[in-house]
Amino acid sequence: MAFVRNLWYVAAWSHDVPAGKPVGVEVLGEPLVLYRRGDGGLTAFDDRCPHRLAPLSLGRVEGDDLRCMYHGLRFAPDGRCVELPGSAKPPARLAVRTFPVVERWSWIWVWPGDPAKADPARVPRAFGLEDPDWVYRSGALDYAADYELLNDNLCDLSHLDFVHEKSLGWASGSKWSNDSPRISAEDDGLRIERWFRDHPIMGSQPQRVDTWSSYRYVLPGLFLLTTQAFPVGTAEASGLGPPDGKPIFHRIDQQSVTPIGVGRSRYLWALGFPRAIATPAFLEGAYQVTRKSFDEDKRIIEAQQRIWERLPPERKPSAIPQDQAPAMFRRLVSQRLADETS
Amino acid sequence: MAFVRNLWYVAAWSHDVPAGKPVGVEVLGEPLVLYRRGDGGLTAFDDRCPHRLAPLSLGRVEGDDLRCMYHGLRFAPDGRCVELPGSAKPPARLAVRTFPVVERWSWIWVWPGDPAKADPARVPRAFGLEDPDWVYRSGALDYAADYELLNDNLCDLSHLDFVHEKSLGWASGSKWSNDSPRISAEDDGLRIERWFRDHPIMGSQPQRVDTWSSYRYVLPGLFLLTTQAFPVGTAEASGLGPPDGKPIFHRIDQQSVTPIGVGRSRYLWALGFPRAIATPAFLEGAYQVTRKSFDEDKRIIEAQQRIWERLPPERKPSAIPQDQAPAMFRRLVSQRLADETS
Amino acid sequence: MAFVRNLWYVAAWSHDVPAGKPVGVEVLGEPLVLYRRGDGGLTAFDDRCPHRLAPLSLGRVEGDDLRCMYHGLRFAPDGRCVELPGSAKPPARLAVRTFPVVERWSWIWVWPGDPAKADPARVPRAFGLEDPDWVYRSGALDYAADYELLNDNLCDLSHLDFVHEKSLGWASGSKWSNDSPRISAEDDGLRIERWFRDHPIMGSQPQRVDTWSSYRYVLPGLFLLTTQAFPVGTAEASGLGPPDGKPIFHRIDQQSVTPIGVGRSRYLWALGFPRAIATPAFLEGAYQVTRKSFDEDKRIIEAQQRIWERLPPERKPSAIPQDQAPAMFRRLVSQRLADETS
Repeated sequence: MAFVRNLWYVAAWSHDVPAGKPVGVEVLGEPLVLYRRGDGGLTAFDDRCPHRLAPLSLGRVEGDDLRCMYHGLRFAPDGRCVELPGSAKPPARLAVRTFPVVERWSWIWVWPGDPAKADPARVPRAFGLEDPDWVYRSGALDYAADYELLNDNLCDLSHLDFVHEKSLGWASGSKWSNDSPRISAEDDGLRIERWFRDHPIMGSQPQRVDTWSSYRYVLPGLFLLTTQAFPVGTAEASGLGPPDGKPIFHRIDQQSVTPIGVGRSRYLWALGFPRAIATPAFLEGAYQVTRKSFDEDKRIIEAQQRIWERLPPERKPSAIPQDQAPAMFRRLVSQRLADETS
Repeated sequence: MAFVRNLWYVAAWSHDVPAGKPVGVEVLGEPLVLYRRGDGGLTAFDDRCPHRLAPLSLGRVEGDDLRCMYHGLRFAPDGRCVELPGSAKPPARLAVRTFPVVERWSWIWVWPGDPAKADPARVPRAFGLEDPDWVYRSGALDYAADYELLNDNLCDLSHLDFVHEKSLGWASGSKWSNDSPRISAEDDGLRIERWFRDHPIMGSQPQRVDTWSSYRYVLPGLFLLTTQAFPVGTAEASGLGPPDGKPIFHRIDQQSVTPIGVGRSRYLWALGFPRAIATPAFLEGAYQVTRKSFDEDKRIIEAQQRIWERLPPERKPSAIPQDQAPAMFRRLVSQRLADETS
Repeated sequence: MAFVRNLWYVAAWSHDVPAGKPVGVEVLGEPLVLYRRGDGGLTAFDDRCPHRLAPLSLGRVEGDDLRCMYHGLRFAPDGRCVELPGSAKPPARLAVRTFPVVERWSWIWVWPGDPAKADPARVPRAFGLEDPDWVYRSGALDYAADYELLNDNLCDLSHLDFVHEKSLGWASGSKWSNDSPRISAEDDGLRIERWFRDHPIMGSQPQRVDTWSSYRYVLPGLFLLTTQAFPVGTAEASGLGPPDGKPIFHRIDQQSVTPIGVGRSRYLWALGFPRAIATPAFLEGAYQVTRKSFDEDKRIIEAQQRIWERLPPERKPSAIPQDQAPAMFRRLVSQRLADETS
């Protein structure tokens, strides 16, 4: 399995890397170590000391530097060894590989490709968990499955009616699997939009609404969903296009899928609501149903992965109409891969 | 490792597949799903949805059909998709592979070979657990070992004196390892018969009997044993052949060995006694000593498997006289394998 | 990974093999079984019955012999089958492979190479745990790491300042990583000697001493360390060579690294003190800090191994001055390997 390298990948939530502690992560099959310098800024290294390959994630942050705690080599943020126990001066060649790293939208992004192409301006726009007018919950799941199966899952929400029949699908109050959203190709992903008209605002509640559900699915694997409920009639009044006005209900979901190896992925997710509409109990309830849903996805996707790995190559999966968006995103990934390897 | 395909294989106990619940099993390395239709009859499918390979064993039984709970495709017992969410009519090509399946002798049998050859009349005769005049206990063990090592074990009961020295061997009151049973080739297996003469009916009990022990070991790997005790002298009176008359004691053992993959097997076992001679306490005692014995087999056979896998190919095992029956059964399997691949 | 075969390898502590009980061990990827004959002497066999490869370590010691508890074959110490259930006389070819085995220095040594070359006089001299004037504690750790990484670790103690910063390194009261010991090549290994001058006898204790630290690291992977503290000034008075006189403090460490397979090693360790200076509480404290230290080694070395296994071959580790002794020992192993395979 090949990976597109020249992209910003989400390696961790910002809060996963505290001050003073190196943290090991994996991206595209490579172990990296992240740590915060004295000013809180991030450095990313190969997670192996160039000397004898001990992991630097077992090392110690010292000021702006990271010390390997096997034989004591100390590395500056540019990767060079600046202290070598038993030697007056470390040789210049003694250095660890560094990776471009950016912190944005509450995520830590690393660039596993050509460093010369690592433009921070190309970090995709997301929501972040910092807006004081909003409240959030977040989580993380490690998957024993290829990132493509997670992308497929997130590009086609028809599965909410089945996988999440008693959790997120039910709670949404909507019927997903017979619906045909508007799917638009964008330069770096897809936009998938739809109105659910005149449906219960949530589960079996009596209040009825029109809901605008709009998400982008962006390279390398970001899911950025806005859900807004309006009085019944708003969909029609908006010409079935994007609504204006202030919603009755508003939720955002920010998720990332990062290949951490062949057959292994890391899934980070968060949900948020305007502070004004979300009591602590409401937030907790939404968090629990969402977490349960993502355990449901993990169960079926990992089972799918195990079958996928054992499948005789001549038995191809069969396409159905609901595959349109997953297929578009797969083609986008394939195209980028072809561009990089040509 | 190759497997004979054109045979009925035991996939599960009948009671392992309740109404309304799909159950995943494995046979010859292939994951299958079993479920009961509305009338209780069984259907067997490949355990993967043809769409995106999600396991149908995580699906839902709906009347006679099985619905994949990833994207909601619904399959009829003939394997065809009869409902495709988001589409008016599923394409005819959208179908899951079906397998011939038969329920008999309290077992569910599937046929992994050419369906045209799947004659239910060829299901081997066993005992079943249904006779109201008898009482039974059953169990199941998954082995990390090739089916051949289990076949070897069951074709040569001399191991009872050693592996089961303090369990089934002792309880049997008989000496197995110096005995030479009569071994007869049959079309689909072996028949192994012997008299134990003038021995304690059980363990160290004072009552002495002649015991007729007779079993068939039948393709693909069925162990079907009858044990009957008679007054001392019956063996001689029967000319050392099969006894007539009504035994003092009677026990049946019904077991199956199914290859579920390379280096993995599933072992189903049951024991039964005439209701008239087996109190609940007696049945429980016999069950416990039998279960303990099969844990002993599993321990040594799995250890043997691990050595087998690591053995340099030039170091062959050495044959001894007690290998006669295992060797005959191995040849029978090899012959069938050669027939199928020629 | 190749192994030098014509060497005595430490397979177990003497106390690991009690009378009357066969014990399975592994050496160079081969499972062996050790047992004590009636006179307490040791026999070593391949841990597989020649009949059907069941492990003899699940067998039973009977007098001087070992019986396989699968089908009851009994083997004499010369490896020949002397009892075959169901046969009057076992065929002469029915035998298990034997290995030269010696018990010395509280260790059980086996010789996996050419038996004709197995000279017990070539067992390296160690300390043993038997001297009544001394007290000891011992332990064992299984490593998921190649023996070479353990050899590296033990040939360069500069890591004490980092890996064991808060355990053995601190307790030693010495600074290891800026020190340059005297390293001498010996025929079968290395000798590494140094004085630590005018330092705290232990941790932060006020008493100051000169300490003589001298160890041999011997093929295949034995670490034999003597640590002796003297009044300050002794180092200089000894011309920085080995001290005479009676030390204030004395400790020995006896350790072995045995490859049990590719990527797997067994590490046996013991520490000892003169009975006169070691109260039970002192011994217990030294044991605890030592055990903690070896858990620290295991953590970093196994992490190193995992990186090593994933490293693209073109990314070689970088040598530093402190690698002198590990590199010498690696060359010695390579030379022996080349000698054996030429």
